Amino acid sequence: MALIVQKFGGSSVADAKKIKAVAKIIIKTKEKGHQLVVVVSATGNTTNKLLKLAAEIVDVPCEREMDMLLSAGEQISIALLSMAIKAQKNDAISLTGAQAGICTDGVYNKARITGIKTKKLKKELKKGKIVVVAGFQGISPGEDITTLGRGGSDLTAVALAVVLKAQVCEIYTDVSGVYTADPRIVRDARKTDYLSFDEMLEMAGLGAQVMQARSVEMAKKFNVDLHIRSTFSQEKGTVITKEVSCMEDVVVSGVTYDADQVKMSIIELPDKPGIAAHLFNELAKKEINVDMIIQSSARDGVNNISFTISRTVLKKTLDIMNEIKKKLRAKEVFYDNKVAKVSLVGVGMKSHAGVASKMFSILAAEKINIEMISTSEIRISCVIKEKNLLKAVRVLHKKFKLNQKLAKKNISTRKS
Amino acid sequence: MALIVQKFGGSSVADAKKIKAVAKIIIKTKEKGHQLVVVVSATGNTTNKLLKLAAEIVDVPCEREMDMLLSAGEQISIALLSMAIKAQKNDAISLTGAQAGICTDGVYNKARITGIKTKKLKKELKKGKIVVVAGFQGISPGEDITTLGRGGSDLTAVALAVVLKAQVCEIYTDVSGVYTADPRIVRDARKTDYLSFDEMLEMAGLGAQVMQARSVEMAKKFNVDLHIRSTFSQEKGTVITKEVSCMEDVVVSGVTYDADQVKMSIIELPDKPGIAAHLFNELAKKEINVDMIIQSSARDGVNNISFTISRTVLKKTLDIMNEIKKKLRAKEVFYDNKVAKVSLVGVGMKSHAGVASKMFSILAAEKINIEMISTSEIRISCVIKEKNLLKAVRVLHKKFKLNQKLAKKNISTRKS
Repeated sequence: MALIVQKFGGSSVADAKKIKAVAKIIIKTKEKGHQLVVVVSATGNTTNKLLKLAAEIVDVPCEREMDMLLSAGEQISIALLSMAIKAQKNDAISLTGAQAGICTDGVYNKARITGIKTKKLKKELKKGKIVVVAGFQGISPGEDITTLGRGGSDLTAVALAVVLKAQVCEIYTDVSGVYTADPRIVRDARKTDYLSFDEMLEMAGLGAQVMQARSVEMAKKFNVDLHIRSTFSQEKGTVITKEVSCMEDVVVSGVTYDADQVKMSIIELPDKPGIAAHLFNELAKKEINVDMIIQSSARDGVNNISFTISRTVLKKTLDIMNEIKKKLRAKEVFYDNKVAKVSLVGVGMKSHAGVASKMFSILAAEKINIEMISTSEIRISCVIKEKNLLKAVRVLHKKFKLNQKLAKKNISTRKS
Repeated sequence: MALIVQKFGGSSVADAKKIKAVAKIIIKTKEKGHQLVVVVSATGNTTNKLLKLAAEIVDVPCEREMDMLLSAGEQISIALLSMAIKAQKNDAISLTGAQAGICTDGVYNKARITGIKTKKLKKELKKGKIVVVAGFQGISPGEDITTLGRGGSDLTAVALAVVLKAQVCEIYTDVSGVYTADPRIVRDARKTDYLSFDEMLEMAGLGAQVMQARSVEMAKKFNVDLHIRSTFSQEKGTVITKEVSCMEDVVVSGVTYDADQVKMSIIELPDKPGIAAHLFNELAKKEINVDMIIQSSARDGVNNISFTISRTVLKKTLDIMNEIKKKLRAKEVFYDNKVAKVSLVGVGMKSHAGVASKMFSILAAEKINIEMISTSEIRISCVIKEKNLLKAVRVLHKKFKLNQKLAKKNISTRKS
């Protein structure tokens, strides 16, 4: 008998039919003799309706009251799911974040979990109950309801798995796992059986929408295996686990991309110490996340700096850049919002040389120009023109043979 | 400076526009320098949607989970109302039943308030905040969310008024007070300025839908004035207060009616001790509330018993009665569901004789036959044929001159 944490997202409990189906999955696990904690999100529909109501009342709602409002969404989900489990002759009990002992700091809308009081949880588990916990929410030191921000329900699940020493934390979602590339773009993209935490982190950071980085980071820190799998099929998904030796045979685990990119450049900045620091300080102060940075000297005494940002902050960034241009007497600020980022991720890169040069050659052969490059130990990213993005993802997936399972024969790439 | 409790029902906060209007009322009171606790209900729309969701999942939902589900409704209301108050530059804080310290027993769906921990409430009031409390809900000794059942939000408001020693508990609703008769039936029905707790209790019990009896009972017990008034106008409503001497000048305060009546009769029961007790015990066991009872001996050794019940329990009652008929060898069971009850209420009846006989004479003059009679110290009720109900209400209202304020000239009855 093991303890398992299962997390179901909002799309998994979107209506009565789906809630009943989720109850079946839960009961099946329970009947294998496991202890079970289930974390559930609000449905997207509920959250959107609540956001709309708030927007009708005030443009910028009070953050505390926003958490009070939105947390009602998960409360609805846990109640309905518990009813569905009980209707199928299994004992369940729903707990709000506060009741489940999820303690957070007092930062509304994006609270951090500071600890979990497990007494009530353990008591109900001991009674043989399936414990259904509201994701995304907790309670502050002042006993106010807080929410954890984006990816908050995953975080609740991982944190519970940590403190309860769960065997695995299963993340049920509407995709069946993590793929070697976006299956909407690459037809023969393959579901990966295993990924290391670091690979998953790189992928999360690169726009793969399966899980937020903060939950993967916590799973990595406390070494809790994650199993990302589909609510709508029984097949095994992708297990995220700590690095094991066999993983290194896989040089590249996946191709990811991010089309939400702008390349911003400032030309002929005076080349003095502290200039770059000043520039990025100003951006950081306005909470603009900068991704890749390139600095180059065109001629003596002046510098060019380029960096990438998300398209949602283009206007804000441009305003700041124009101020800086004036202040520092730079020559020009310009941007290109028709760029995108394509990346290769693989823990095997650590021990295999030549991945980067192979990537550049493949893109060059397709006449795709690389505008910026950045690398980590297990990732290579290139900024290219957006019009070349699909071609780049497909050719990289093909040339690195990601459609093939390691040590298996080439499976036809034109089938699915 | 006084402390005032204001309660707003679900219809008062049904949409953003209404919520903003309610915030205006609240702020107006606050600006008079009062401390303010506001109790708010879920909107009917929210509650209905949640009930529908539950019904789609299971026929008879678990009571604990039902409370978890429904309490989300008030949580939404308090968050939105607090946002609206804050948007109008006043400081407010929302508190769930649990956060407001509303302690109840553990009976889900119809919990009783056992006490209120006022520490948090008083702390926030001291800071000058308008405290917005979720009505209808509390927390059990096991720290589960409970709901208080019908009229629960009124009860929350009255209980808070009691423990906080409020000057008055204002019940805002969609009518402007308590009328001498239902204004939909009696065109010149008049809003009463004052009623005693006992009169209000009789009226609540007689189908006047303004407030549930349990809240009035608590207000009476702890002597908290209630002020029933309209959310949608500024006029003074009806104040419910303890009996004061001037009230006794008003002999009759109102005519009420209840069309939801069935007269049930069992004929030729053996006239033995304990027979009636047995009959009404069986009904009580099935939670059937019996109102008026008449027992008469038609001839020696046999008894006839008639009583009234609500139409919703007709089928259930009939089944029980037929069993009893067989068991006790009575001759016959029959019912009349075309009856209704009309009542006069007035604290002045205590000291004024002749009200009953005047009522009977008025009805007789209209050829309205009285089938059953029951009285209390401040009420007289008659069961009549339903077809005569409107006529009875109107003629009693007219003949007892309820359209006239005491000691004022007759105002034209044909105007409004």
